[in-house]
Amino acid sequence: MKPIQVGLLGIGTVGSGTFNVLARNQEEIRRRAGRGIEITMVADLNVERAREIVGDAVQVVADAREVIANPEIDIVIELIGGYGIARALVLEAIAAGKHVVTANKALLAVHGTEIFAAAREKGVIVAFEAAVAGGIPIIKALREGLTANRIQWIAGIINGTTNFILSEMRDKGLDFDVVLKQAQALGYAEADPTFDIEGVDAAHKATLMSALAFGIPVQFDRAHIEGITKLGAADIRYAEQLGYRIKLLGIAKRQADGGGIELRVHPTLVPSKRLIANVEGAMNAVMVQGDAVGTTLYYGKGAGSEPTASAVIADLVDITRLHTADPDHRVPHLAFQPDELHATPIVGIDAVRTAFYLRLRVADQKGVLAAITRILAESDISIDAVLQRESAEGENQTDVIILTHETVEGRMRAALAQMQALPTVLAPIVSIRKEELA
Amino acid sequence: MKPIQVGLLGIGTVGSGTFNVLARNQEEIRRRAGRGIEITMVADLNVERAREIVGDAVQVVADAREVIANPEIDIVIELIGGYGIARALVLEAIAAGKHVVTANKALLAVHGTEIFAAAREKGVIVAFEAAVAGGIPIIKALREGLTANRIQWIAGIINGTTNFILSEMRDKGLDFDVVLKQAQALGYAEADPTFDIEGVDAAHKATLMSALAFGIPVQFDRAHIEGITKLGAADIRYAEQLGYRIKLLGIAKRQADGGGIELRVHPTLVPSKRLIANVEGAMNAVMVQGDAVGTTLYYGKGAGSEPTASAVIADLVDITRLHTADPDHRVPHLAFQPDELHATPIVGIDAVRTAFYLRLRVADQKGVLAAITRILAESDISIDAVLQRESAEGENQTDVIILTHETVEGRMRAALAQMQALPTVLAPIVSIRKEELA
Repeated sequence: MKPIQVGLLGIGTVGSGTFNVLARNQEEIRRRAGRGIEITMVADLNVERAREIVGDAVQVVADAREVIANPEIDIVIELIGGYGIARALVLEAIAAGKHVVTANKALLAVHGTEIFAAAREKGVIVAFEAAVAGGIPIIKALREGLTANRIQWIAGIINGTTNFILSEMRDKGLDFDVVLKQAQALGYAEADPTFDIEGVDAAHKATLMSALAFGIPVQFDRAHIEGITKLGAADIRYAEQLGYRIKLLGIAKRQADGGGIELRVHPTLVPSKRLIANVEGAMNAVMVQGDAVGTTLYYGKGAGSEPTASAVIADLVDITRLHTADPDHRVPHLAFQPDELHATPIVGIDAVRTAFYLRLRVADQKGVLAAITRILAESDISIDAVLQRESAEGENQTDVIILTHETVEGRMRAALAQMQALPTVLAPIVSIRKEELA
Repeated sequence: MKPIQVGLLGIGTVGSGTFNVLARNQEEIRRRAGRGIEITMVADLNVERAREIVGDAVQVVADAREVIANPEIDIVIELIGGYGIARALVLEAIAAGKHVVTANKALLAVHGTEIFAAAREKGVIVAFEAAVAGGIPIIKALREGLTANRIQWIAGIINGTTNFILSEMRDKGLDFDVVLKQAQALGYAEADPTFDIEGVDAAHKATLMSALAFGIPVQFDRAHIEGITKLGAADIRYAEQLGYRIKLLGIAKRQADGGGIELRVHPTLVPSKRLIANVEGAMNAVMVQGDAVGTTLYYGKGAGSEPTASAVIADLVDITRLHTADPDHRVPHLAFQPDELHATPIVGIDAVRTAFYLRLRVADQKGVLAAITRILAESDISIDAVLQRESAEGENQTDVIILTHETVEGRMRAALAQMQALPTVLAPIVSIRKEELA
């Protein structure tokens, strides 16, 4: 049988990895897929560089629409990124009856509903294993491996840049700004790192996982997003003393009382003994809690040329193996059948339930702790642990660290406002959410 | 559409979990599968107990062949276990045109070639996610998630009983026999624990993973198998001091020189800082190293009623989603197309390459260490670290611990024989393989 012909839109880091791995492992991949898989056409604005990567045997064009229009092409890989031209090209590829493989989490988190509906209409597959956690097959685990379960929550380290920065901050006791500069110098963070450090990239991925886990539409605009830019070395150190590490987690959670779904990205204290707390550097890991299976965890490289290519090619093999199946008997894009999505609401941040780490800079005088704990007690927020530092020599102020039990965020915010108004509280209170992940 | 009808052979721990989870999550599962999935018939020799579990709405019979003969049944779940009657029933179900789901690793590791060939002949699916690592979707990861990769090795904690025993031995400093009795009292080990503690169960699972990873036939009879019965608390303690933990690993590895495949189960020193070294109690974890993706790890409950049921039901959903696909465009049972298996040999243990931990009980006198290290040097085995204990008071003997670099096992065995023959070596030398898993 002649090979499946693939057209590649955008040959940067992941695209060249995909081309190289497909070439290097072509025999192994053919033995698995039952048919060769070949990239026969590449579109990239930088035609020269593209030709250097793929050589003369592959047709290189500047205009992606030439790839889509080519009737020989069975599958289109979109590795352009972003919401604009990528959206138009993916929709055009679908309209032309091509299967699509993409690593574009931003596109799917925002325009997924439109794109999956168009794919269904045309009976083609839009595969996106590479969009979440690089080479880790987490989309497949959620969509196929855990289908028996009522999934209760997902919590993941799904952005390697921020995990690298947090690991360095902890190892070396440095503040965020210093480590970010180092990370940029080392190539672990981009020149404009906003999407990573502000949590936006993680929120795109958490949005996709929330849809897969709970059978709801993708709703990126409902995600609560906080990055790591305000974290200080002091809080990382105090957390450590209390048996916790701080990780930027993407969390999607079904509320126990059936109230709704929580979808949020924020720095989180996690018990040091959990495996996920020990995921260091640029690695990714996702925990999934299901009612039958209990806790499972998936770990690996969340980014990079060949790890991400591994996921892109897994999707190519899936399509090659299964594309003759009638479209009503395939694996649904978002795990649930498209006419079976639920409208369970994603709740606002005030309704989210977590425990908290609080750090208060206070005057070192009698009655301060009593005033703070009274506010918490009156707010019905119970305290798990208190750590009070002695004042440094010559200072008359100190840090009070409080770990609370779980509470509703709105209640905590009201209590924080009251505590902040105390004359003995001398600086803005730091509050970081805490999850036991048990 | 009317539900897919499932017949269940053997309703013990996993069978009742499967029945209960299917009932509890039927709505969630139907939304994913696109069709209801119902167990409508159960065969178990203990008809009374079976009826107590499933109630009156399900037909219960003593004879499994009645289930297979029922034309209404689309899928047969085999949860009887063992090689004998289970083999006959699985082959009969295939012959009757039923898809089969099984958790029976022993059956597939020994008779897989025959069973998968029969399934291919009839165009039916034999699914076995539950056969390895309980609820962790590791079969799916190997068969579908990592298809881009030339897989280099797999190393897994794939037997919960032995991991529980090893965790207890380390935590409490106890010897194997004592902990085994406790584990039996707690229900973590069976009355006859032979298959677990001698490594046979792990070898069944490693055999299946070797086929999935390397595209070779299942060859359980070629696996090298050592259990944990000879491990002492002293070696666990010494390993800890050197920065290692001892885990029973199932390993399938492609030799770097292309010589063949290693397939082995044995106690293994693993660096304490690796995530897999921190997998405690009855939990399972599997590491997979691929040339594109790098290291990935999959963690979860490896046994138990509902975790294993989670995997059984995932297979039911897969079959429900995909059973209309033409048999030549399905996911192949063993990851590679059946006519694309290779005959790469599984090498004998003498050709295996690992590093070693050695403990020698020696006379506390001059020249002992020199004699030992000379033998290693002459055998071309290089030393990574030496730990020599002072003699206990009043004793004139002591332990010498040696970590070696990687060597060929046959060479190490010859060196061990020479060292054992030294008059100053006073007890049988303990040797345990060591893997860096980097």
